[in-house]
Amino acid sequence: MRYKCEIAYIGTRYAGFQSQINALAIQDVIEKSLEVIFKEKIRIIMASRTDAGVHALAQVFHFDATEYDTYRLKGALNHFLPDDMHINKVEIVDKNFHARFLVKAKTYRYIINTGESDPFLKDRALEIHYDLDLDKIEDCMKLFIGKHDFASFNTTPYSDVKDQVREIYDFRMIQKGKLLIFEIRGNGFLKNMVRLLIGALIDVGRNKKTIEDIKKSLAAPNKEKERLNVAPGGLYLVSIEY
Amino acid sequence: MRYKCEIAYIGTRYAGFQSQINALAIQDVIEKSLEVIFKEKIRIIMASRTDAGVHALAQVFHFDATEYDTYRLKGALNHFLPDDMHINKVEIVDKNFHARFLVKAKTYRYIINTGESDPFLKDRALEIHYDLDLDKIEDCMKLFIGKHDFASFNTTPYSDVKDQVREIYDFRMIQKGKLLIFEIRGNGFLKNMVRLLIGALIDVGRNKKTIEDIKKSLAAPNKEKERLNVAPGGLYLVSIEY
Repeated sequence: MRYKCEIAYIGTRYAGFQSQINALAIQDVIEKSLEVIFKEKIRIIMASRTDAGVHALAQVFHFDATEYDTYRLKGALNHFLPDDMHINKVEIVDKNFHARFLVKAKTYRYIINTGESDPFLKDRALEIHYDLDLDKIEDCMKLFIGKHDFASFNTTPYSDVKDQVREIYDFRMIQKGKLLIFEIRGNGFLKNMVRLLIGALIDVGRNKKTIEDIKKSLAAPNKEKERLNVAPGGLYLVSIEY
Repeated sequence: MRYKCEIAYIGTRYAGFQSQINALAIQDVIEKSLEVIFKEKIRIIMASRTDAGVHALAQVFHFDATEYDTYRLKGALNHFLPDDMHINKVEIVDKNFHARFLVKAKTYRYIINTGESDPFLKDRALEIHYDLDLDKIEDCMKLFIGKHDFASFNTTPYSDVKDQVREIYDFRMIQKGKLLIFEIRGNGFLKNMVRLLIGALIDVGRNKKTIEDIKKSLAAPNKEKERLNVAPGGLYLVSIEY
């Protein structure tokens, strides 16, 4: 059977979603729990490789295993998983379902706290204590909407990803008290792309860069220019659409 | 000089605000930081003795010490305090100001998560997985508004608090997605009173008690009847008015 799962997690304690050498990843924790339940090694395929410290409200992964009641499986997984993870949903899906290849859109959120420091937002938002020109930020956000080669906003070496064109369907900013909440929806995101986009917006908002600078970075991919990779704790994977 | 401070904290790691034997209280942590700054033992007086695990968005305390610039004092305190506390405000006040005796009103919030478990709300909300009759809860909330002897909703032994009459100015419930957010404002609260009131509302909402039962508890103080002391992590001291 192929299972599709939706999981929420606080990324703070982990070296990202994907397994790696010498560091605990969220994937390792999930696979260990699945091994206890199914009594065999199980490999999961995730929709999105969130980085160290990045959170998820609804990450998706799939795996193949023997038959198991989905309600009981959800309960068993949540029993074994630590408190900073929670499986929201388990369903049995068609053998052709693939958590990564079939993604149609992903939505990310980035939270900036522009007010007083807040212990409840520790590792959950970026704190900014200087003034930001929100009109300029909103103008700049419009540049990113549509299909662009986002190579300037990618920390993976050039050779690794051939096609760096991604389409951003929607990018909006909501002010909620002292918080600035950015939501971006697109067909895919390069490594660190959301955080580099937010970094560029911050640079524009504090007049360290002009909108023209950002236009140039988009027009002529240059990996040296857009390097403000903001704190991972402000980033949330919100949803995956298939 | 007399200083008035406003502090936010996550109560999870502490045995409550007030110092006690053999357990770390928030008061101890603040007084230790003040001692480092002022190089003398300083005793603080808090507005509200929040219990173990209870949070605050704006607790107030005062203390007397030598002259110090308030902006620098705020910075120094936040430097020494751990990440789960943050001083929002420091002001110099009149010698007659008293953080506890002069309180005119306090507002508390209680958060219940009625939906899927949420790692981001761990120790920050009460999870309830059974149905609640919200109309009954709202009817019951109205009973508490006004001046009442709340002895049935007090865990302190009878003899310790002579006057158990408190006035509730306002009590409201807001539904926000899967959350039920209760806000209660009154001239004072007895030990565990907010949590016992919320516990009574839950009992009414799930039909374990009737509104008549609660009326009786209010009319004839009885410390055996209202004992559902809900999780401290759902409780927030929101503001203190002088």
